[in-house]
Amino acid sequence: MNAPLPSHHLPQIERRPLPAAMLEALQQRFGARCSTAMAVREQHGRDESPFDVPPPDVVVYCDSTEEVAAVVALAHEHAVPVIPYGAGSSLEGHLLAVQGGVSIDLTPMNRLLRVNPEDQTVTVQAGVTRKQLNDEIRHTGLFFPIDPGADASIGGMAATRASGTNAVRYGTMRENVLGLTVVTATGEVIHTGTRARKSSAGYDLTRLFVGSEGTLGVMTEVTLKLYPLPEAILAAVCHFPSVEAAVTTTIEIIQVGVPIARCELLDVNAIRAVNRHDKLDLREAPMLLMEFHGSPASVQEQADTVQQLALDHGGEAFQWATTPEERTRLWAARHHAYLSALQTKPGCRCVTTDTCVPISRLAECVTETMAEADASGLPYFVVGHVGDGNFHMGYLLDPNLPAERDTAERLSLQLVQRALRMEGTCTGEHGIGLHKMGFLVDEAGAGAVAMMRTLKQALDPKNIMNPGKIFAA
Amino acid sequence: MNAPLPSHHLPQIERRPLPAAMLEALQQRFGARCSTAMAVREQHGRDESPFDVPPPDVVVYCDSTEEVAAVVALAHEHAVPVIPYGAGSSLEGHLLAVQGGVSIDLTPMNRLLRVNPEDQTVTVQAGVTRKQLNDEIRHTGLFFPIDPGADASIGGMAATRASGTNAVRYGTMRENVLGLTVVTATGEVIHTGTRARKSSAGYDLTRLFVGSEGTLGVMTEVTLKLYPLPEAILAAVCHFPSVEAAVTTTIEIIQVGVPIARCELLDVNAIRAVNRHDKLDLREAPMLLMEFHGSPASVQEQADTVQQLALDHGGEAFQWATTPEERTRLWAARHHAYLSALQTKPGCRCVTTDTCVPISRLAECVTETMAEADASGLPYFVVGHVGDGNFHMGYLLDPNLPAERDTAERLSLQLVQRALRMEGTCTGEHGIGLHKMGFLVDEAGAGAVAMMRTLKQALDPKNIMNPGKIFAA
Repeated sequence: MNAPLPSHHLPQIERRPLPAAMLEALQQRFGARCSTAMAVREQHGRDESPFDVPPPDVVVYCDSTEEVAAVVALAHEHAVPVIPYGAGSSLEGHLLAVQGGVSIDLTPMNRLLRVNPEDQTVTVQAGVTRKQLNDEIRHTGLFFPIDPGADASIGGMAATRASGTNAVRYGTMRENVLGLTVVTATGEVIHTGTRARKSSAGYDLTRLFVGSEGTLGVMTEVTLKLYPLPEAILAAVCHFPSVEAAVTTTIEIIQVGVPIARCELLDVNAIRAVNRHDKLDLREAPMLLMEFHGSPASVQEQADTVQQLALDHGGEAFQWATTPEERTRLWAARHHAYLSALQTKPGCRCVTTDTCVPISRLAECVTETMAEADASGLPYFVVGHVGDGNFHMGYLLDPNLPAERDTAERLSLQLVQRALRMEGTCTGEHGIGLHKMGFLVDEAGAGAVAMMRTLKQALDPKNIMNPGKIFAA
Repeated sequence: MNAPLPSHHLPQIERRPLPAAMLEALQQRFGARCSTAMAVREQHGRDESPFDVPPPDVVVYCDSTEEVAAVVALAHEHAVPVIPYGAGSSLEGHLLAVQGGVSIDLTPMNRLLRVNPEDQTVTVQAGVTRKQLNDEIRHTGLFFPIDPGADASIGGMAATRASGTNAVRYGTMRENVLGLTVVTATGEVIHTGTRARKSSAGYDLTRLFVGSEGTLGVMTEVTLKLYPLPEAILAAVCHFPSVEAAVTTTIEIIQVGVPIARCELLDVNAIRAVNRHDKLDLREAPMLLMEFHGSPASVQEQADTVQQLALDHGGEAFQWATTPEERTRLWAARHHAYLSALQTKPGCRCVTTDTCVPISRLAECVTETMAEADASGLPYFVVGHVGDGNFHMGYLLDPNLPAERDTAERLSLQLVQRALRMEGTCTGEHGIGLHKMGFLVDEAGAGAVAMMRTLKQALDPKNIMNPGKIFAA
């Protein structure tokens, strides 16, 4: 088992120089949209990970696929690293310019290019965020379900194969991207996929880019599946005597095949934090926050089944969030869990894990992990997309106390070891980034990782696309 | 637009010699499980495509991943082509040994290795067929939904990214393979994926191999998602005044979000054929054959919604198949459509298409294509997984009449051109194989196909894995 990279120092990689000719060419083409101001560079060299910032050498704001292609072609010519930048909400150091280079800021690419309600598809530029997308398509009666919590960009979500609260019902970015426009590592533009729902035409380039974390090319346009807004939505909260009881109930929900749309666990620490942050008065006991989508009859039927399963494990009577406002308030609180928890320990940073295990092992995995965290004395919280077998431990640490960092990293390592023993994955939705390269080898094996490296080498022979991520440089 | 390879002659590719040393090594290791008998070779050089047979030089029956790895390592050493063989039900010439070489028959690898009902997963050897799988897991209350009609092997289904009647509800092989054991082109064994439902750990090697048609490696073990057998199943037949009315109804079913499990179109010609073959008395009018899965209340609700939509388009009252026996009889008839149609023109062969378009364009695509077929005078039939936007034209031709072959190929070409204009795909589920290489370039573009070739070259530098498929040699 490979130890993770300690979160308090970055790999010692040499930064590659940015040739003056390249900077000049960028400045000539992009003018004020090309910045070397330190504040801008630092903003683009950080994300939500606990790492310190290595800034890129230059930030370029691109407005079109053609502009991205021009930047990458220059970078290819000069062998300069390229890091695509969206909302900056990555948790694994994806945006950190460990070898320097160009940050391509895609936020100006924030247009919906085509909405096809009759086919339930949409094509967006990569800088569109998920909330913007749902706001702009609301009139169609359709929605895009993937919801990682943060208002991430669609390009970033594709790059990390994101999922979140709705994945148990609607799948992840893997299942919901139909096609892509990609700028390759040599600056060419290719298109993958079609607007048809399925295809057997050649290698699945779409799926190769989804989850590639910017290391194979820059996704500039994304065609997505949309879904009809459910006729009825029911949300409910259910408290349990223990986390184990809540998770065991979840396992049974999945095993009997209830098509639950969202099934989120919050432990007492998470509830305490969101109560304070969002001024709620949720009872401080382990809780499932659930949502059911369907026809009025079907959501009632689903909820009845789940209520019965919950009662069998000591769950209380559901508290219903019947109005859209109540629902929104609860989900906002859930999405604030990370931020809320940070505020419980002023000045702290957070090591967030995202292991995912086969559903039958989930209760065991969560309870063992919590016992370990309790024994460590480090403050933590648990939230989880438990319907997928996926949960997050957030370990809160004082960045000035190396011992706390070490404890958090040890707990994270032990959790990953446990998840892999249970035939799960070291990352359900955050990606490998800078932090989990060792875990990837443990999980996939040296042979599979060697094959990934072979693909990287074939598509990006100069190693300019987000170098030093997924694989050690 | 690239014309397809005419189905009556194969590309003129030189067969590579099988070195005596390699044959000797195979015979030594495999004994009677290594055959050079012409009858065995010819059986392994054909599939359900209309091509003539180029046999492999030798057939080896493998019983384990280790045996497959040993054969591929030898083939790599001697630069000899390798073609994995499952059920032989491919429609696009995947199994034809156009460059000679070794056919690896995986049918002895027909064991279920692990059933995990509590996680709804199963791991099978690649030679297990879908019917065998469902028979062997019946006691668990779970099933594997992907159903391409033929009793294909799971390995073959993964290799062509197969789908079929249930895909509208349960997805295709793309969505339902969790992990693989793969023998690489150099004879190494790697594992991809885990038993967790989702993962963001590195490149999606699983999806790269699914749909790679044997050109990147040999899949020897496959971990699949399973689903709870529905509490209630309702099947119904509905006749319409026209194919257009049936397809328009389908479009609306999808647009309103009914979670229909199967939605199959049969035209008059297909119905006539299955009536004769299966001794049924279905009315000879365009028909949808549908199935609804869920709770008793939910299937009734779905069926009521669909019945109302059908009535709006002149559909008749549903005829229900209420017993499992009636259901089985109807679905068997649907699955026999291809065979039944062949028998309507003794001695004929069939060019089968499988274009797939965005759902809103489906009615237009089907009706234009049928008008073209009517004008040609060639007998044909239409069946379709219309809920996916996917349909099959079967053109029946006399193999001794070149004019009929040419007509069939012209119609097929025109259909693909139409589907691509409508932003669809040249193949929804059969794959590229030998027949659609030109179509692939038209669909994906030269840049994307060049990228696919780069991947092929990187993973299979000696071009031994099913050479001459997907890309021209």
